[in-house]
Amino acid sequence: MAATKLKIGCAGLGRMGKRHALNFLQRTPRAELVAASSPDDAEHEWAKVHLEPYGVKLYKNYDDMLRHEGLEAVVVASATAVHAEQAIKAIDAEKHVLCEKPLSTSVEISQSVLDAAAKKPHLKVMCGFSRRFDASYRDAFNKMSAGSIGAPSVMRSQTCDKLDPSGFFVAYAQFSGGIFVDCSIHDIDLALWFFGQESKVKSVSAVGITAVEPDLRKHNDRDNAVGLVEFHNGKIAYFYASRMMAAGQEDTTEIIGTQGKLAVNTQPALNLVNIYDSTGIRREIPQHYYDRFEYAFVTEANEFTACCLEDTPVPLQLDGAVQAVRIGAALQESLITGEKIFFDEEGNRVDKSRL
Amino acid sequence: MAATKLKIGCAGLGRMGKRHALNFLQRTPRAELVAASSPDDAEHEWAKVHLEPYGVKLYKNYDDMLRHEGLEAVVVASATAVHAEQAIKAIDAEKHVLCEKPLSTSVEISQSVLDAAAKKPHLKVMCGFSRRFDASYRDAFNKMSAGSIGAPSVMRSQTCDKLDPSGFFVAYAQFSGGIFVDCSIHDIDLALWFFGQESKVKSVSAVGITAVEPDLRKHNDRDNAVGLVEFHNGKIAYFYASRMMAAGQEDTTEIIGTQGKLAVNTQPALNLVNIYDSTGIRREIPQHYYDRFEYAFVTEANEFTACCLEDTPVPLQLDGAVQAVRIGAALQESLITGEKIFFDEEGNRVDKSRL
Amino acid sequence: MAATKLKIGCAGLGRMGKRHALNFLQRTPRAELVAASSPDDAEHEWAKVHLEPYGVKLYKNYDDMLRHEGLEAVVVASATAVHAEQAIKAIDAEKHVLCEKPLSTSVEISQSVLDAAAKKPHLKVMCGFSRRFDASYRDAFNKMSAGSIGAPSVMRSQTCDKLDPSGFFVAYAQFSGGIFVDCSIHDIDLALWFFGQESKVKSVSAVGITAVEPDLRKHNDRDNAVGLVEFHNGKIAYFYASRMMAAGQEDTTEIIGTQGKLAVNTQPALNLVNIYDSTGIRREIPQHYYDRFEYAFVTEANEFTACCLEDTPVPLQLDGAVQAVRIGAALQESLITGEKIFFDEEGNRVDKSRL
Amino acid sequence: MAATKLKIGCAGLGRMGKRHALNFLQRTPRAELVAASSPDDAEHEWAKVHLEPYGVKLYKNYDDMLRHEGLEAVVVASATAVHAEQAIKAIDAEKHVLCEKPLSTSVEISQSVLDAAAKKPHLKVMCGFSRRFDASYRDAFNKMSAGSIGAPSVMRSQTCDKLDPSGFFVAYAQFSGGIFVDCSIHDIDLALWFFGQESKVKSVSAVGITAVEPDLRKHNDRDNAVGLVEFHNGKIAYFYASRMMAAGQEDTTEIIGTQGKLAVNTQPALNLVNIYDSTGIRREIPQHYYDRFEYAFVTEANEFTACCLEDTPVPLQLDGAVQAVRIGAALQESLITGEKIFFDEEGNRVDKSRL
Repeated sequence: MAATKLKIGCAGLGRMGKRHALNFLQRTPRAELVAASSPDDAEHEWAKVHLEPYGVKLYKNYDDMLRHEGLEAVVVASATAVHAEQAIKAIDAEKHVLCEKPLSTSVEISQSVLDAAAKKPHLKVMCGFSRRFDASYRDAFNKMSAGSIGAPSVMRSQTCDKLDPSGFFVAYAQFSGGIFVDCSIHDIDLALWFFGQESKVKSVSAVGITAVEPDLRKHNDRDNAVGLVEFHNGKIAYFYASRMMAAGQEDTTEIIGTQGKLAVNTQPALNLVNIYDSTGIRREIPQHYYDRFEYAFVTEANEFTACCLEDTPVPLQLDGAVQAVRIGAALQESLITGEKIFFDEEGNRVDKSRL
Repeated sequence: MAATKLKIGCAGLGRMGKRHALNFLQRTPRAELVAASSPDDAEHEWAKVHLEPYGVKLYKNYDDMLRHEGLEAVVVASATAVHAEQAIKAIDAEKHVLCEKPLSTSVEISQSVLDAAAKKPHLKVMCGFSRRFDASYRDAFNKMSAGSIGAPSVMRSQTCDKLDPSGFFVAYAQFSGGIFVDCSIHDIDLALWFFGQESKVKSVSAVGITAVEPDLRKHNDRDNAVGLVEFHNGKIAYFYASRMMAAGQEDTTEIIGTQGKLAVNTQPALNLVNIYDSTGIRREIPQHYYDRFEYAFVTEANEFTACCLEDTPVPLQLDGAVQAVRIGAALQESLITGEKIFFDEEGNRVDKSRL
Repeated sequence: MAATKLKIGCAGLGRMGKRHALNFLQRTPRAELVAASSPDDAEHEWAKVHLEPYGVKLYKNYDDMLRHEGLEAVVVASATAVHAEQAIKAIDAEKHVLCEKPLSTSVEISQSVLDAAAKKPHLKVMCGFSRRFDASYRDAFNKMSAGSIGAPSVMRSQTCDKLDPSGFFVAYAQFSGGIFVDCSIHDIDLALWFFGQESKVKSVSAVGITAVEPDLRKHNDRDNAVGLVEFHNGKIAYFYASRMMAAGQEDTTEIIGTQGKLAVNTQPALNLVNIYDSTGIRREIPQHYYDRFEYAFVTEANEFTACCLEDTPVPLQLDGAVQAVRIGAALQESLITGEKIFFDEEGNRVDKSRL
Repeated sequence: MAATKLKIGCAGLGRMGKRHALNFLQRTPRAELVAASSPDDAEHEWAKVHLEPYGVKLYKNYDDMLRHEGLEAVVVASATAVHAEQAIKAIDAEKHVLCEKPLSTSVEISQSVLDAAAKKPHLKVMCGFSRRFDASYRDAFNKMSAGSIGAPSVMRSQTCDKLDPSGFFVAYAQFSGGIFVDCSIHDIDLALWFFGQESKVKSVSAVGITAVEPDLRKHNDRDNAVGLVEFHNGKIAYFYASRMMAAGQEDTTEIIGTQGKLAVNTQPALNLVNIYDSTGIRREIPQHYYDRFEYAFVTEANEFTACCLEDTPVPLQLDGAVQAVRIGAALQESLITGEKIFFDEEGNRVDKSRL
């Protein structure tokens, strides 16, 4: 083919890495997946079957992949703990970067990615908040932007995972940053998107319980948590995150405005089938996050590719990703301490009495 | 109380009779149930507990009840076979009549009620098509009448009963007139209501099967049937009736107009509860016809009472009840013979070649 | 009629008073509305048309009505400010009492009703939390009680009124006790019902805004508010209340358990009609609280009547009504001060450091 | 890339041709679109922008394209009138064929494709009934096959297009074969799929009107039509087709079994957004057939490609496509003549008296 394609490499071939790799290989016509890296043997075995035959060069070492001839961009889909380091290395190596969320569970480390990117304004550096690419959220955002609900004022949003009795969530909690940083980060990003990225957090408070996984307390985490966020511009958002949904993944959002409301996914459904039997009328729902947002990830890959090729701005700004971690980490702290946390308009933590 | 109440008697205390009796006794403030009749001992036992203590005089004989001092009106809720006879006797005795549907399974006998009523225009004689009193159907009718869907052109309507493995429907088929006369009569009445009672049938055709109750064939009946009705005014209606719904009663109607559609009960639900469990999201639905239309029957009792007391026209004309039986009986015939049946604009059956 | 009826009087004939009066007059077969009282001339004019002709004696003065010969029970449906006083007077006069919610906006005054009732255990004294009588909430409660969702752990519940641009809500806020005491009191009562009335509040926190009615701030109120409630038994509830819904009344509740979820009214609908036009598929929803809960109020009247006649326990305990006001008032305080409020297991307010 | 790809050409670049060409070019990783043909200048202009730069060779003449070096397969997406001719030429030229539906509006011509294919059993020849590749229909089919609804007995299915006031449908009717052959062919194919391709039609009858486009009568067509189909195996199907839906495309199917029902798309929705405003709660729906079935076409392209490369059977048999045209054409005839049409088990038309 004559048309130019973006040569991209995928860092990490775990659960999300495999998906990103295949999306860039098969479902992103303007991209060419040329390389992939993973230190893990099992992941290499998978890649030898699914990537190598299609011309993808495999690397054990991320740094080696960065030196792949002609490589223009990297999708960072490795463990959260190395997101920031790999993203910064890629920026330093003059590669465009699509980094899985969160940049880091630490505000400071997240900021370091932002700093690195700021030095290379010609590079596209994007944190992949998948809901920004979901057709339903975009439709809601466009309708809100067109004024259909007046002034957006209150957001309710939840990210609720299906119950996994295997103990996975306990092990995962050790590195996830906690349920607000891992799950609610999406909802926080939505608040920043719909309320405007310039919205400054004023206070956060949270409560939570361990209804099914008491061992989460070892990692300062909970399996159900509710958080309240107040912004200085007079808007409020409240978030629910859970690890114990029985029916499947339930990610629901409402944007309540002065003249209307937009609701996304208040009637979850896997597809268009309804089953009528002696127990009533039933529908199935997506089981996992990726089931719900698969096409959003494909759109993300295609749009990131187009931005790199055409040198257009990426659809979400990197500083929002830092702010989202700041809010998520504060909610997580409030969840554990029970204390409400206040911020001034410059983002400094303050005593209530200072407000 | 000072205000005048309508003194009414209830003929028949079977399944529907009990309901009508209690509705007039307890839920129709302007009516006073003064009498009830049934030849059945078991029904009398029930009435001694539920009616007699509240001042209702019980009769074994319908004719005796008609002579009850001060009786002004009768609700005929006995077996279909005696509907017409009892209605005509009541009319002759100068009583207002609310008669359960159908007037009869025979067009001729139905017509005889119409003839009797025509001689006593000061009496209120109404055939109880309950859906005419249902809030949702009325809302749809009002919206259509206000022009919200342009010209109503096509109706889809179904009356589908829950599967009853007891064999009830086989025994019932002996006297019901068949599935089109028993079930679809409601849908036919809706077509006459929404398309206008002056709509003249042009052709009917029907097919059906016995998927769960082959013994229905003994009574020239089917457990699933679909019928097409064409009207001379260029409108069409199609009906589905079934005795084998797994989830419960499913009575759904769509009125399709040139500029929109009104749909009644395309998402059946018993109440506002949704159950989320490992099988998905589920809701229960009404199990039987009365569960779905209970409040319509209460409204029917109240409105019939008001018409009698205030001498206002009843909300549905009696000739429609005859026309509905005519269409239902023709569909039933087509179901059994397999032949399409044609009518001219005067209602005479004709060969196709005559049209 | 031979069967005994409960002789009841209605105190107050304002918006809710009229409804209660008519419900006891027309839709409660075992009750006889014998009296009604109101100091208001306009309300008397209404009553002369709608009550007096049916044998209801009208009083200007509540105390006079209490002396009505044979009066056995009173429904207190006057202004919230006199609920407690009238309820206590009725108790002292040996009448059963059905009192509209809340008993008072003050915890102490609410408690005084409880104290008065405690001295007369033979009287039925009930605070009318209408949702307890709603068929959907009851179905959900029964399913939960039957174990269908495992252990109930988290409740989300909202009471959201339709936007009323007339300024009504501002005037109303002067006496309502605030949005949490006026609206969320229902949701709080649901939490006490579903989690068990013995649940002891551990902490409350709340945030709110005035998106459409800045004048509410004069009365220390808000038009949108979100509250978090933590219970000592490890359950959490979060509430949203609003005065600016565009489509109508939106009262939604979810009860999330360890093995499932029950959701009430996540798909609000006025009736079973869907309207298909060029803007999509649309349904209308109830406009006001009473539209949604009309039949619950009728059931409440009937069940209260039955309890009085049969000397059976009322379906909800009076102390819950006091506890609901305690939680509502604390949320309202948190909403205004911005501070999180903590309680020990005995219900005493404590500093966080004491927990 | 090392892995082999299927070299395919696209015949026709009209509305559907463009879609098929882009699907094979961009969304079918294992296929390589190497050629496209169209006699139309405007279509060539489009192709010069969207296909040629990516290595697709353009032809004015279909026969020339068939001689394209290395061409292995053809997708026939030209006008219906040349479907069969082009498909047969491709078969004769030893190409695999994916042919848009219908093979022809004529039963005989449709059969000629089947005959040609029968001579070359090593070639994959498939008629593209897109719903067979839709995730929801497949889910329903799998659930039915697993026995979840008992014995499938009745099918209701509709294909209803959005009203197009431009007159398009009148012009289109000249060549479409009529509403049953153009629209309901999909529903007929579903009946053959769900009831089993061996189901033999026993009778068809149909009625229809021209509610918005009287000019359709010039082409023996209607804008709303309902058809009944009876099969010799005791199953029945009824179909509704319309050209005047106000809200958008409404393709709904119910499969009713002896123990349950599966419903596909009874609650159409464009996406997961609900809009709450002063008119109620609203959702938008897909506007056109392709909006609804876009991903089904992508799946079709991918699965056809896999069958060709791996020499596996195509997922739907070609003789069903002929049978669907037979039933569709009979329904269309019944629609125009008003006569019911009967067939014996060998597929011969018979008088009713012969049955």
